[in-house]
Order: sequence, then structure tokens, then C-alpha cells
Amino acid sequence: MTVSPQLGALLHRSLRVYQVWGANTEVGKTVFSTILCGLTSTYRPDEKTAFLKPVSTGPAHEADGRHIPRFLPGIHSETLYQFDLPVSPHLAAQVSQKNTPSDKEVLSGILDFASCHASPNSGWLFIETAGGVHSPGPSGTTQADLYRPLRLPAILIGDAKLGGIAQTISAFESLKLRGYDVELVLLFQNDTYQNHSYLTPYFRENHSIPVQTAPLPPPFASSNPQSDTRNMQAYYTSTVTLSSLSSIPAHLSSSHKSRISRLESMPSTASQTIWYPFTQHQHLTRDRITVIDSAKDSHFDTLDPGTPSKSLLRPMFDGSASWWTQGLGHGNPTLSLAAAYAAGRYGHVMFAEAVHEPALALAETMLSGMRNERLKRVFYSDNGSTGVEVAVKMALGASRGRYRHGWEGEGMKKKAGVIGLKGSYHGDTMGAMDCSEPGVYNERVEWYEGKGAWLESPGVSDPLFQRTLVKVVRASPELFAGKRGHAHQSKDELDWSGLPVVFDEVFTGIYRLGRFCAASFLGVDPDISVHAKLLTGGLLPLSVTLASESVFRSFLSDDKSEALLHGHSYTAHAVGCQVALESLKEMIKMEENGEWDWALSSQHKSDDQSHRASSQQPDQVVGSRVWSVWSHELVEWLSWQREKGVEGVWALGTVLAIHMGCAGSSAGYKSTAARGLQAALLRGSDSDGSVHSRVLGNVLYLMAGQTTTEETVRRVERLIRQGLGDITR
Amino acid sequence: MTVSPQLGALLHRSLRVYQVWGANTEVGKTVFSTILCGLTSTYRPDEKTAFLKPVSTGPAHEADGRHIPRFLPGIHSETLYQFDLPVSPHLAAQVSQKNTPSDKEVLSGILDFASCHASPNSGWLFIETAGGVHSPGPSGTTQADLYRPLRLPAILIGDAKLGGIAQTISAFESLKLRGYDVELVLLFQNDTYQNHSYLTPYFRENHSIPVQTAPLPPPFASSNPQSDTRNMQAYYTSTVTLSSLSSIPAHLSSSHKSRISRLESMPSTASQTIWYPFTQHQHLTRDRITVIDSAKDSHFDTLDPGTPSKSLLRPMFDGSASWWTQGLGHGNPTLSLAAAYAAGRYGHVMFAEAVHEPALALAETMLSGMRNERLKRVFYSDNGSTGVEVAVKMALGASRGRYRHGWEGEGMKKKAGVIGLKGSYHGDTMGAMDCSEPGVYNERVEWYEGKGAWLESPGVSDPLFQRTLVKVVRASPELFAGKRGHAHQSKDELDWSGLPVVFDEVFTGIYRLGRFCAASFLGVDPDISVHAKLLTGGLLPLSVTLASESVFRSFLSDDKSEALLHGHSYTAHAVGCQVALESLKEMIKMEENGEWDWALSSQHKSDDQSHRASSQQPDQVVGSRVWSVWSHELVEWLSWQREKGVEGVWALGTVLAIHMGCAGSSAGYKSTAARGLQAALLRGSDSDGSVHSRVLGNVLYLMAGQTTTEETVRRVERLIRQGLGDITR
Repeated sequence: MTVSPQLGALLHRSLRVYQVWGANTEVGKTVFSTILCGLTSTYRPDEKTAFLKPVSTGPAHEADGRHIPRFLPGIHSETLYQFDLPVSPHLAAQVSQKNTPSDKEVLSGILDFASCHASPNSGWLFIETAGGVHSPGPSGTTQADLYRPLRLPAILIGDAKLGGIAQTISAFESLKLRGYDVELVLLFQNDTYQNHSYLTPYFRENHSIPVQTAPLPPPFASSNPQSDTRNMQAYYTSTVTLSSLSSIPAHLSSSHKSRISRLESMPSTASQTIWYPFTQHQHLTRDRITVIDSAKDSHFDTLDPGTPSKSLLRPMFDGSASWWTQGLGHGNPTLSLAAAYAAGRYGHVMFAEAVHEPALALAETMLSGMRNERLKRVFYSDNGSTGVEVAVKMALGASRGRYRHGWEGEGMKKKAGVIGLKGSYHGDTMGAMDCSEPGVYNERVEWYEGKGAWLESPGVSDPLFQRTLVKVVRASPELFAGKRGHAHQSKDELDWSGLPVVFDEVFTGIYRLGRFCAASFLGVDPDISVHAKLLTGGLLPLSVTLASESVFRSFLSDDKSEALLHGHSYTAHAVGCQVALESLKEMIKMEENGEWDWALSSQHKSDDQSHRASSQQPDQVVGSRVWSVWSHELVEWLSWQREKGVEGVWALGTVLAIHMGCAGSSAGYKSTAARGLQAALLRGSDSDGSVHSRVLGNVLYLMAGQTTTEETVRRVERLIRQGLGDITR
Repeated sequence: MTVSPQLGALLHRSLRVYQVWGANTEVGKTVFSTILCGLTSTYRPDEKTAFLKPVSTGPAHEADGRHIPRFLPGIHSETLYQFDLPVSPHLAAQVSQKNTPSDKEVLSGILDFASCHASPNSGWLFIETAGGVHSPGPSGTTQADLYRPLRLPAILIGDAKLGGIAQTISAFESLKLRGYDVELVLLFQNDTYQNHSYLTPYFRENHSIPVQTAPLPPPFASSNPQSDTRNMQAYYTSTVTLSSLSSIPAHLSSSHKSRISRLESMPSTASQTIWYPFTQHQHLTRDRITVIDSAKDSHFDTLDPGTPSKSLLRPMFDGSASWWTQGLGHGNPTLSLAAAYAAGRYGHVMFAEAVHEPALALAETMLSGMRNERLKRVFYSDNGSTGVEVAVKMALGASRGRYRHGWEGEGMKKKAGVIGLKGSYHGDTMGAMDCSEPGVYNERVEWYEGKGAWLESPGVSDPLFQRTLVKVVRASPELFAGKRGHAHQSKDELDWSGLPVVFDEVFTGIYRLGRFCAASFLGVDPDISVHAKLLTGGLLPLSVTLASESVFRSFLSDDKSEALLHGHSYTAHAVGCQVALESLKEMIKMEENGEWDWALSSQHKSDDQSHRASSQQPDQVVGSRVWSVWSHELVEWLSWQREKGVEGVWALGTVLAIHMGCAGSSAGYKSTAARGLQAALLRGSDSDGSVHSRVLGNVLYLMAGQTTTEETVRRVERLIRQGLGDITR
């Protein structure tokens, strides 16, 4: 099986690569590309310039790729895909006899071309797009999206015609909202419309981007092509000496250098400036800090100075799904636009006693998506930890309301706590910490004080145990009513009974384990449910704590101070709510359209597991809609790798957890086994790229996003197999 | 003095107003406007259609405003500003003899025109823009920004020409990132380029927006204008019967109705779905829920069904700065684009042991902005409350490291607490709550347990007292060293001494009180400083906890578990960091450019204050760069209103706090005085609009943003005077 190399951002140390975009068609992209090639080819005697037109439409003899060699014979100029019809590439490709290249093929072609021109000597490469920034490429993807994985620095050719100010700014915004850096704006000097006079201060003041102009080129006389060529030659000769333009190579060269030197200095600056979360800085050497230039889909583009002949940026699979948050892909333009729309419509608007559309629509969507009749109320906060604090305040307040008379005089306040599971984790604010059992980490924080009883689940998050626990609590209100109280029995079966049942679905919910609501695996409807992380598709923090009407009603009183006393300034911020709304809609649609069917449980048929170390795929428990992106073959294989230190493996939805231990032949593995696999994944391979992952104690976990392709997952699986092989060598 | 009415979003119940935008110039805006007028004028017999061209360029006899009456004589058509030169309005206005209208005048003209055409009967109004969406208006502001305060639903005329797919999508994105709702895309059916075949599924699938086409209009024969007119007449007659187009009035009418009915149902839905922060729902009747349709600059556009002849949306000054967060204005396009750029470049990327440009640049900018040599490290979290928890963990950990031997066997863990001020508030997560003294609110939360000694400041946040407290703590390490310990004296004066000093600048910092760092008012450099709210200019949650190197170093150890054990999944999310970076840059630039000089302390000269209730403007304390947007005259006047219940007034930076009490002639005022003023501000006046404000106990506070204009502040000041007058009546 041939595996295409991973596509990632393109940045060579010596070869300065720029992508030339047009604010419109017919704005002079090719003329400016020729000027840029002319300027750079004479900038330094030892530097070569190359030109690439990935996709060109119109008769081959008129193609932009041929224009440059005509005037600059020394320039290596190439066109990757040529279609004769002078229309948008997606149409031209349709009617052409040729095969339509995929986006990947176009990008691979560019990467190959750049590789061929990269050398230890400095050089230049200009890559010209076709039409406007959103003109579709051959596959139909608009170019702004198509070329984004390379994230090349952009030169925007502005529109000097009537209306061109609008075209130039809008094109710029489309590039910007996809994360491109525009380094330079060029346009013709049209003295009637004077667009340059407007755009120069506009880009300087708002975006610190220089605007340079060239005179309008001589008009064509279609009757006399030879004269046209002479005129253009004279035009090019004169333009390269213009002071406004002659500074361009130095500007581009300097911005290229600055970008690389900034990237290279970031670990050092970060190690002196940043205090990292959950990090022992004593152990954090500079070389362990990953520099992330940008990210796309399921991967980071990270600085990798070890391979001078290749791109300085290396695609790395985001194996922790960016701390469990990533779902709809890095650099997702739909989420960018959703964020920008809400920012443009509202900014943030205060939420107490007010309502706005994204917050209300998101509340409705969450409540209906849960399919839990108990849940009727949505409380917003900022992250999983604050969402858990809200849940605790809800549960404590509801219990106080019902039981306070029963416990009067018995110091109930001190006793109030949670019934929780051992080994649980609910966040790092003090109230959330107090919901977990004491342990080596918690106890280092002076104010931590575990407030509860901690039960041991017989297996890794055993569904039956958890369901039974809830049933017992709900059936036994007398356990909680106190000496002087009496067990509360409501006729409304949606009322909470015994204790309010809180599910922390911050990690498990919203399709992380394959379902909108992971409580459905247990067949239990909680009274309170906390959600965050994937809620916003992997873009920014937001949390919702959902509650039943009976919990809600216990806070109703004539006394204002009996209310739920919690709120953050940015509660229900419109940007977060809008992004979450788009994310949920998208994921619900993906489920409905069967876009994850390739990962459905059919491939996880149970077979004889008696020889395995420990393989849990709880599909037996949970019915038909269970899926795992991680293949049955991999899980099966892993479960036989006890001698390589694998103690157990667990896969569900997008999650794969590999427990490493000291069992088997490799004694002393305990502390380094997971680290060894992690390092092997990070090294990766030429064909399958590399994987950035996180380790929790002796567990290496991997996680895909909701838009991660099967091909990418299989790639990671090959690296896992190879990595475990590596360890024994 | 004549006061122009406040500009706000335009939404009439009966008059359906749409703004027609062009994806480019020459795409057929006027032809489609004519078609829209034709379709709607025959939609229902009793409905009238009007057409407005706010700004037109080119010879008057060719103006778009004259085109429509020629073909649809019954339509009321008007042009507000006509400039003869056929170039962009900003250029045409420059060379014209006429006065250039301000943005406000253009908007007022539209509002007036719409008011004239609003009636109890349904009707239609189409407002046509000039050129492309970003073509500059007469003042030079691009139209997408210029017209944003009205936030009219948009109809985008797509570009059917070569390259038009790109132009249409980019124009759409520019509208969307300013918060416009595009209801419909129209374009000509050009069978060569087939842009409509691409755009129809594109807009349907990605944005649920319908695309409709009309045939290309007949070509003009310049020699025969009469024949041209006949041909166009025939074209219009035939197009209005096309089934693709004839459905448009029903579509627009239905979306208009849906929008209003959704807005009207929101309070009811919200009161059944949302659990509001810090709100006693028992008291929350539906009519008290403010429906915020959108927001712009310093105001909300809120549903106000009480005035049927006017816009259903009423601009309301955001008097709490959206819970103290707002700085750079609602719907700020710079912040929208910054958010979108970071989303497009990264999404969220995990931060532990990684670094990305926005996080690093923001860290550098914060540290340099503070001008506190102690602060060297930046820890990211999600909001002020989590930022305070981080600060507490830092301070406790540092103290433990230094003092644990001294306190061994004395139960230091239980004793570890803060020295805090009475009346303080630091957030709602449990750890942050525990940093404030017990009170009626805290004690309702079972797990709250104030952990400290609470000192009473002799005055409202007395700077001298606070500075002295810090000095005493730093000079007296022996107080904290414990029986068996000895006072630690470092030679490095940047080391913490006594106890680590934490400043919670979540509210006070980043120019809320007029300076980047409010600690500078006290002349004290803390060891730890917490920032949030204005950090992101008022867009979304992010917090930084800054710390000194000596605090940081106390967590270094070979033991991983001695690290600072805190982190949130979205730590240092790129969108928040990029927005914060842009916000800080913008605010620092505003300060440097003297944009707040109108509010400088020169107007707050101290005079005899002996007769006042209590007026504090602590400019005496703090040197030359103190400013208050609230005028000296207002503060002076308020300080004399004791008989109207004013007990004290406090103004600094953007903040005004009015303490209401039971003193003076109006007994029983205590509980309702602030509420009375709040209600009067909410009623407002026709000329000065209204004010949405929040009350804290007996304090009504008001706050402006960093971009709030002096005119707006004075408007609010008039309402305050009027409101206090109202109360006595």
C-alpha cells in the first residue's frame, strides 16, 4: 500500500515561498508575479527565483505560467494543472478530458516543487493562485480553503478598478479568517479611482501591512502582439527600478527571517515567561517545548529544526485532541466564521436577566440533544471545572432545602459531601478538587479537603456498577434524611430522590465516546449534567450545567440570597454560544448522515478474549450505536502485547487508552513504558508522520476528532504498532 | 443644545426593511432592487413598497434612484446624498462642493425615511448600497461598517461574471463577520460561468441561505435609449413572473415575521429554559428579561414592544459595561477579525509544554505593560475566579515552601489563609469564595469556609491603608515564620517577603480605572497579580495570573507533584490570546495617542468639599495621569443630592458609583433608592435614550467602555440628573 506523505505547512529556511492571491480576477496577478520574480532574481546574485502556477485555465499558449519565461527567461516556471477552458478551474476540470486532481494532489505537487527548489542557498518561489481568493480549485474547494494546509505567507494583489477597495478588503478578510498572514498588498496605480490612496493607510493603520503600487501596464493592441511584448518588456524594465517596488525583496526577506527567528526563539522565551499548567518546570528543558506555528484538521504544524532539507514545519497528529477538546478540526472555517459573526453581532453582552439568540438556541439544542426528560434548565459557565462547581452548588442547595430539618443540630454543613468514585477527576478549582478523593496531587494544595465518600468501581468505569449505585441512592432516601427527617417520596418520577445525581460529562459527552450523551451507556438519567470541552467543537472555553426542574425549584424563595450564587462576567458569552451551537448542529448532522459509520461496532465483534491482557470494548453493554475509530485489529493486537508492557487497552468512540505496566518481561518498565511509546510516536516515520500525545501516569491515551479521517487514524495505528516494536529493540 | 437621537438597530413590525448589497460593482444591484420592488409591490394589494439609495455617485440623471420610478412609477424612491463624479463616494464627496455627510447623518436619514414609511399596514423598504460591501461611504468608513448600527437584514447580489464566485463568498464573509444576517443571495444566470450552480449548494449547505437567479438583462444599445427602456420594461415584466423569483416576497415576509416572533417569545422561552447567574428566579418575571437582538459600541439593541410606531429595537446604554468587561465596544470588527484569524490559524491547541505566538506575545505584552519588575511569569486560565484560584495556589505553595519547617506540628495546613479586606469579592468558585470574609451570601454555600483574617479599610479602598498593610507584611516576616522558623531575609529585593502579596486586578486593571495597572495608584508592586475582564476588550473569557520569579521558583523540585497543579483544557486558547493581544495594543495606543485626554483630571480640580455628602475622586493621591470620564460637574452635583438619597459618590477612570442610603429626608429609601434610579435610567428619555444598569445592594454603578464617546457619557449624565429628579417627584 502506497502511503502519501502527510501534508503540512510549508516553510523552508532558505527558500522564501510566497503565495500570490488576487482580490479579483483581472487585477494583474501575473504582471505582479512577473515583477516579483524580476525584483527577486536581481536582489542577490546567488539567489534563484522560481514560479509555480498550480492550476491554470485558458488556452495553454496564453497561460500565466508562460508569461514569465517570455520576459524573464532565467526563471524556472511551471504549471501543474492546465485546463483549456477559460472559466473557473472546477468547471474547466469538469469538461476537460483530464482527471480532476484532488486537493491533496495539488498540494503534494506544490510541496514537491518546493522541495526541488530548496537548497542551502537562499532562493525565492512565488506561487500564483487563479482568479479571486475564493475561486474554486479543480475539486470545487475554494482556493482559500484548498491551500490553507500549506499556510504560505500571502501577497495580495489589490483591485485598482472601480469597486476595487471593497474587493481588496473583502478578499483580505477571507484570507485572514482562515489564518493566513498577508505580508504585502500590491496594486496598480489608477489615478481615476485612487484605490491605493485609500488602501495604503487602511492596511497600515489597521493591519500594519505595507501597500505598494506599480503603474498601470501598457494597453494591449490585439493586432500587434510583437509590439505588445516590446511594451511589456519596457514596462517591466522600468518598474523594477521604482523605489516603491525595489524595497520589496528586502521587506520579504526580512519578514521571512523574522518569522523563523521568532519561531526558533520561542522555546527560550517561553521557558522564561510562561508558567505552564500541570508542569514541573524543573524538568522542562527548552527542547521539550513544542513550537506550534499553526494547526489544521487533526494536526499541529510544529517547528522541527532537525531536517534542514525539508520544511521547517512538521505535521504532527494532535493525539490528545488538544487536551480532549478537539472535534471539528483545527482551523475550521465554519467555526471561525461563527465566532466572528457573534463577535460582530454582539461582542459579549451581559447575561443576568437578559437573553440573546445564541445562548437561548444553544440551551434548547443541548436540552433536546440530551434526551433526558429530567433536564430542563441550562446554567452557563466558562469551563468544566466551573461547571462542576455549579453542579455542586446546585446539589448541595437542593439537598439542604430538603434535608435541613432532618439534620438540624447534627452539623450537617460539615458533613455535606458527595458520593464519588475512586480515581475520579473533575477539575482544578478548589470546589471541583474537593469532589475527588485525596491523593498525592490533591494533598499538595493546602486548601484541598476531599468532601465525600469514595467508592471503588470493580472495573474501569464499570457501567453496571455506576447504574446500580444510582439506583440504590434513588431508592434509599431514608439514608440521607437525617435522624429527625423523613424520607421524601415524590409522585413525580422526574424529581430527584435520595440525592441529586450529578454526571460530569465534560470529557465523555458530546460524541467523545460516540454519543451525544454518554449517560445513555449507563441507562441512567442524571438530575444534573455538566458539559464542556467538545461542546465548542474544540475552539474556546464554555460550559453548561444542565439541571432538572426539581433541583431548580429548590432555589426558589422570596429571599434573594437563596438563589444560586454563581456567575462569571462572560457568562454565556455570545461567541462561545454561537460556536457551540454550530458545533452541535454539525456533529448532530454528521451522526444523522452516518459519517462515522466506518467506525461502527460491526468491526468490533466480540471473540475469545481469554488470552488477552485485558481488552475492554463495552459494546456488549450498550446496544447497537457504539463505535470506535480505533480498529478492532489494533485493539486485538495490543491486547496480546503484554510482554511489551501493555497491561490493558480500552477503546470507545474516539478514545484509545493503553495501560502500560511492570508485568511481562521488561522489569522496571513501570515509570518509562508509556513515556517510551510516547517518544516513539513523536519520532514517527517518514511515511506516517508523527504523533503528539500526552501520558497520564502509566496510561498513554490517544484521541481523534470528529472529523479525523479513517486514513489518518490508520496512519496513527501503524505508528503505535511500530512504536511498541521500537521499544523492545 | 440640539441632541440628535440615538442610533440603533432598525426593525419595524409592519415595514420590512432590507438592505441590498453588491458582491462587486456592476453586478446588477439596481436591476435586482427593481425586481424586488416590482415583486413586493404586487405581493399584497394593500402593501406599499419604497426604495432608498442613501448615497449615489455619478450623474444625477443616471442615478439608481431614478431607475426605479422609470419602471415602477408607483414606488416612492429617494436618494439622500447624490454626488456627480462616478467614483467611490468618499472621493466623490471630497471633490464635490457639497458638505460631506457624517456617518451619523447618513444613518439618521435612513431612520427618518423608514419612520415616514412605517405604518400599521405592512410594507416594504429596500435600501441599496453603493459599489461593493466595503466600498467607502462619504466619510471614508466602509459601508459594511458604516451601516452596521442599523443591522438591517441583508440581500446580497452575487457576481455572475468570471471570478464572481470568489467575490460573492468574500463579500458574504465580510458581512457575516460584522454580524449581519444575509437572508437571500440573488444573481444573474450566466451560463458560461455558471456561478449560480456553484453558489446555490454552497450557500444552502453551509449557511442555509437560498440563492435565486434572474436571466441576464438585455444588453444596452447606447444609440437607442428608447429601445433600451422598452427592452428593460419587457425584461422586468417577464422576470416578476418567474417562479424562482416570485417566491421571494413570501420568503422575506416569513423570515421577517419569524424574527419578530422569536424575539417576542424569547423571554418566555428563557424563563423556562435558562438558569440565570446570581438571580432569584422567584422574582424574575418575563417582563424583566431584556431581549438583546444585537449590540454596537456602547449600547445594546433591545426589544421594546412598547412603541409600535418606532423601531421595535431600542438602543440602551450598556451601563454595567456588560458586567465590567466591555472596553473596545460591542461588535468591534478588529476584535472579530482577530478572533477569526486565531480560529483559522490554530483553533485551540493544547498548551502544556507547547507554545504558540498569541500566547507568547500576550505574555510579553502583559509583563511589559505592568511595569512591575517583580512580575516575570504568566499563567493562563479562563476567568477571574480561576485566575484567583491560581494565585491562591501560588501563594500557598510559596509560603509552604518557605515556612513549613517553622510550622511543623502546628497544623499549619489548617491555619493557612489570606489576610484580606472586608467587603471584598474575588469570584464564585469555592477557592475564590474562601478568599472573602463570611457574609450573608457566602454562607449559603455549604462548602464555603472563609480562610483568612479580614481587615477593615478606613475608607472605600483607601490607598494609603492598602499600601501600609503591604509594607508592614513585607517588613515583618517574623510574624509568619512560625515558632520553630526564622524570618527569611533575601538580598534580592524582588523576592517576596513576609507573605506573597496578591492583587486581584480583575476589575480594576487594564484601564478600567484609567491605567494599565491599578496597583500603580497604591505605589505597590505585588508579587502576584490577577487580570481578566477588560483583558480581552470585552469579547470572551481569558485570565492571566502574573507571578514573580521568586514565587515561581518555589514550585521547582525534582518531584513532579510539587508543580503548580492547575490547568484547564482551553488554557491559553489562541482565540482569547489573540483577541487580548489586539485589545491591549489598541488600548495602549489609545493612551499614547491621548484619546482619553478629554477625561483627564484637569477638569477634576479639588475644591471645598466640606458640604458634600461624600465625594471621592482620589486624584490627589495618584499624580498626574488620573482621569475620569464622568464630569466633575456631575460628581459635584451628585455630592449635593443627599436629600434625594445620595450618600456618596465615587468616580475614577470609567467607573461611577453612586451610594444610595436612608439618610436625608426620604425615610425608608434604603431598599429602593438605587432601584428607583435604575428604573428611571431604564425609562430614559426620547432625546437621550435609556440606560441598562446593574445595582449592587445600595450602590448603583455605571461604567463606560474605553471607546465610549464623551457625547455618550454626557447623555448618560443628563439621564442621571433627570433620574434623580424623577425620584423626588
